[in-house]
Amino acid sequence: MLAGIKDKIRVIKDFPKEGILFRDITTALKDANIMKSMVDYIYEHYKDYDIDYVAGMESRGFIAGMPLAYKLNVGFIPIRKPHKLPAETYKEFYELEYGMDSIEMHKDAVEEGKNVLIIDDLLATGGTASAACKLIHQAKANVVGAAFWIELNGLGGREKLVNDIGCEVFSMLQY
Amino acid sequence: MLAGIKDKIRVIKDFPKEGILFRDITTALKDANIMKSMVDYIYEHYKDYDIDYVAGMESRGFIAGMPLAYKLNVGFIPIRKPHKLPAETYKEFYELEYGMDSIEMHKDAVEEGKNVLIIDDLLATGGTASAACKLIHQAKANVVGAAFWIELNGLGGREKLVNDIGCEVFSMLQY
Repeated sequence: MLAGIKDKIRVIKDFPKEGILFRDITTALKDANIMKSMVDYIYEHYKDYDIDYVAGMESRGFIAGMPLAYKLNVGFIPIRKPHKLPAETYKEFYELEYGMDSIEMHKDAVEEGKNVLIIDDLLATGGTASAACKLIHQAKANVVGAAFWIELNGLGGREKLVNDIGCEVFSMLQY
Repeated sequence: MLAGIKDKIRVIKDFPKEGILFRDITTALKDANIMKSMVDYIYEHYKDYDIDYVAGMESRGFIAGMPLAYKLNVGFIPIRKPHKLPAETYKEFYELEYGMDSIEMHKDAVEEGKNVLIIDDLLATGGTASAACKLIHQAKANVVGAAFWIELNGLGGREKLVNDIGCEVFSMLQY
């Protein structure tokens, strides 16, 4: 099953810049059965966990997160780029190759003590995912785990989440 | 049921700028039962239509579109802001209050003659949705309809889609 999914993920050279092999999930999402398998694979791992919310990072984390929240029968929290959320937010900065970026979550998105699963399509250096965990912690809620359809090995993402944040990492495909 | 959903959609004044009443769906999405009702409401309308793909517009259209595609058991097509999609794209421009913006879709996202349902969280002037329809038409595919959780009356969105594009419009809540 995983081999079938992997076959549907297109590899594009030099996007968004030279030297990067981009993993394009759009070719997998357009195949109804493959897309279903991708959602279900994450669901099967987490279905017996005690989860109150799924939080997805803009914008491919919305694609991975909403059907999962729907299936788990829990609420969905969008974690967004700056200035997109209309009410009061927590904010976390993270490093890019050159400079910094930030993400935000509504202060009333999650209540103290609740259990949140964070999700994104891809784990690389773990910068965004760590920042997402810190947003959940700012709200005094718990990060149950971090789930990804794709994990790029050797970029330190898993180590950062496990060692620095103390967060369980689960991924469907590894490259 | 619709009144219950409407109660959960928060109204924020003067966002993103003065004079705008922003309809914030995050407060509805965080309630598992309300979120499920929102997805199911659109699903119930379209479940017997002949649909090959659901296409969602970045980025709240991803939130509305993915669980719908999952439930309808069809593929999902992301329609994205410029320079986000890695392969060859069709592009359509649309007018903003000041200036122009554009959206893109992969050229191989949909095959000739296929039936596509487009979806976004909110219909206002219809600029983005019309551009999305034109992207589908560039690919020689059909737009089965345009679905929205929220429709703002009096801004010409429905008229533009129905009269200019010849597209059926379906919305859950009207303001």
